[in-house]
Amino acid sequence: MSVTAAKGFQAAGIAAGIKDSGNPDLALVVNNGPRQAAAGVFTSNRVKAAPVLWSEQVLKGGTVSAVVLNSGGANACTGPKGFQDTHATAEQVAEVLGLNAGEVAVASTGLIGVLLPMDKLLPGIGTAAAQLSEHGGEKAAIAIKTTDTVHKTAVYEGDGWTVGGMAKGAGMLAPGLATMLVVLTTDADLDADVLDRALRNATEVTFDRVDSDGCMSTNDTVLLLASGASRVAPEYPEFAQAVRTVCDDLGQQLIRDAEGASKDIKVEVVNAASEADAVEVGRSIARNNLLKCAIHGEDPNWGRVLSAIGTTSAAFEPDQLNVAINGVWVCKNGSVGEDRDQVDMRYREVRITADLAAGTESAVIWTNDLTADYVHENSAYSS
Amino acid sequence: MSVTAAKGFQAAGIAAGIKDSGNPDLALVVNNGPRQAAAGVFTSNRVKAAPVLWSEQVLKGGTVSAVVLNSGGANACTGPKGFQDTHATAEQVAEVLGLNAGEVAVASTGLIGVLLPMDKLLPGIGTAAAQLSEHGGEKAAIAIKTTDTVHKTAVYEGDGWTVGGMAKGAGMLAPGLATMLVVLTTDADLDADVLDRALRNATEVTFDRVDSDGCMSTNDTVLLLASGASRVAPEYPEFAQAVRTVCDDLGQQLIRDAEGASKDIKVEVVNAASEADAVEVGRSIARNNLLKCAIHGEDPNWGRVLSAIGTTSAAFEPDQLNVAINGVWVCKNGSVGEDRDQVDMRYREVRITADLAAGTESAVIWTNDLTADYVHENSAYSS
Repeated sequence: MSVTAAKGFQAAGIAAGIKDSGNPDLALVVNNGPRQAAAGVFTSNRVKAAPVLWSEQVLKGGTVSAVVLNSGGANACTGPKGFQDTHATAEQVAEVLGLNAGEVAVASTGLIGVLLPMDKLLPGIGTAAAQLSEHGGEKAAIAIKTTDTVHKTAVYEGDGWTVGGMAKGAGMLAPGLATMLVVLTTDADLDADVLDRALRNATEVTFDRVDSDGCMSTNDTVLLLASGASRVAPEYPEFAQAVRTVCDDLGQQLIRDAEGASKDIKVEVVNAASEADAVEVGRSIARNNLLKCAIHGEDPNWGRVLSAIGTTSAAFEPDQLNVAINGVWVCKNGSVGEDRDQVDMRYREVRITADLAAGTESAVIWTNDLTADYVHENSAYSS
Repeated sequence: MSVTAAKGFQAAGIAAGIKDSGNPDLALVVNNGPRQAAAGVFTSNRVKAAPVLWSEQVLKGGTVSAVVLNSGGANACTGPKGFQDTHATAEQVAEVLGLNAGEVAVASTGLIGVLLPMDKLLPGIGTAAAQLSEHGGEKAAIAIKTTDTVHKTAVYEGDGWTVGGMAKGAGMLAPGLATMLVVLTTDADLDADVLDRALRNATEVTFDRVDSDGCMSTNDTVLLLASGASRVAPEYPEFAQAVRTVCDDLGQQLIRDAEGASKDIKVEVVNAASEADAVEVGRSIARNNLLKCAIHGEDPNWGRVLSAIGTTSAAFEPDQLNVAINGVWVCKNGSVGEDRDQVDMRYREVRITADLAAGTESAVIWTNDLTADYVHENSAYSS
């Protein structure tokens, strides 16, 4: 499963000692080909971690032979030394596996502003390489966890080909071009341009629309590697759908494991004048702390939805807005609608529908409620 | 004190029964002249409460004889009936006091999406009018409280003239053109144009830069009324400074009483290319939930500051950013700076300084930490 579901890939996950806890913290994913095509999308945060700066360069070549990922440290805001460390990490992987360092992508996650313990990371690469296996996908997925409570994997089976992937992420979970660390693999026989197109189309409507806490990471990385080992070249539409399905699945897993959350909130914006309007409104609703608290309290406080919509530049008339919570239209024409006591909010999933009555476009943004547990997790220690 | 510190004003605050708790919920402020000049700024939220829509019209005339304010209900998202209720409220004040309803401003605060109990509000106006007094400022300030734990008043004494004011606000506290309900009064002998200019200049750098939770109200209203009773017409610079001083004082009181907060955070952005850049960066830092949690935990987590700066469009180079927390430069040149253990965060006020190294402009945004108490206050009941 995970990144080793597709043929042509090996992976490993080990404890290199980067984390004080002794938990797994180093993952390696290797593409044995015959092809090493790859595409990647990275955070749009202008403060980018060293591994993002490195991997962006690597991906420009469209070829990735291996990906090394560590948890226990983001290697972000670490200056020239941090970049040297990323470079040394790629070189070490290249040396151990007999590859070109320029084809080794690097991803890191953990606390910002701390240098990685290279005396532990570099030897760990050899250990991980020795454990590479076609069944190593789960261990790799486990090794990239930080505050994640579960590891996240997903697989799509095509006709003779497969797309699989792993993801980590539980906080600092918001847009960018992508969200958190994700590695997707496929044995489909496709070139880098096709991978890039499929990946961008998929992330735009999946990871980009997961907005747990409005905080954009410095390290977000999503990679898609193709080995061609299936010798099958699927048609673009089906392949794109497969990538989107796996991204959607992993995105949902991120939301369900978001730090401290007790509710998964699906914000649907419908009848917008444009998709951009729908996304802007959805994100404004998803980021409204007061609303997120109300949902936590199982309070269908639609006034906070309207208040959030009102801060956007989307096309709408205040007296034509309609809002449903779990299917009950509690706000009609910008005013009091159906009885809010009809709204059943006992379950983990809550659906907020905002009808802008301004067009035919729509978008879905996923978010979480705001809880005392979120505050605790993010105030009790540095992460 | 409060709105009756300046000569020419009377005020009252009573319990009309709008709040189930029986606490004071109706305030009246009357300008006895000789002049009734006024200026106002209102929320920039596009979903505006009925009293905001009404008062915006009233203020266009530059004359306000009385202001009626209620807590216990925002009268926002209440459709045509809500607007009729606001109109009827102004008419009732006009009738009781012998004024023109077109010169009566109305302000409401409380839960969005609920009609006001007019059967209690309208009779309450007569009761309040009967209690109007030149010493009624404190009672008026108390009657406009919602989740506020204390009432907020401020006074500036000029040479023979005075500016005084009251404010309420503890949540849904963020920009707009203004923040929350504020009434300022002065006995300076100035016309509406001068009041308008002084008020806009003041709110831009005071209430507009208070951003407790990023949530913009539908009801934000700031009014400045001048009676001319001092017969003194101060020079504009001194008067503008007085208005700014009172607004700044009230803004600080709002921050110190923000829902659930345990820290007041002063975000100073310095060496920005423009003031707009400084404000954008300051607001991005002030709205970062992860950082707000870290400050709550007394954790000088500067990585979250850089991560917030990175999401803005301001001019800066990531490797030239510097960040100080309580005066300790924990981040230098985008990387690890002075020892974070030197940062003393035991006190309520925390100062974050972000140096963009891109120019000479600066701005200050005030915010609060994010706490379990905030979550509790905003999830335990509708507000």
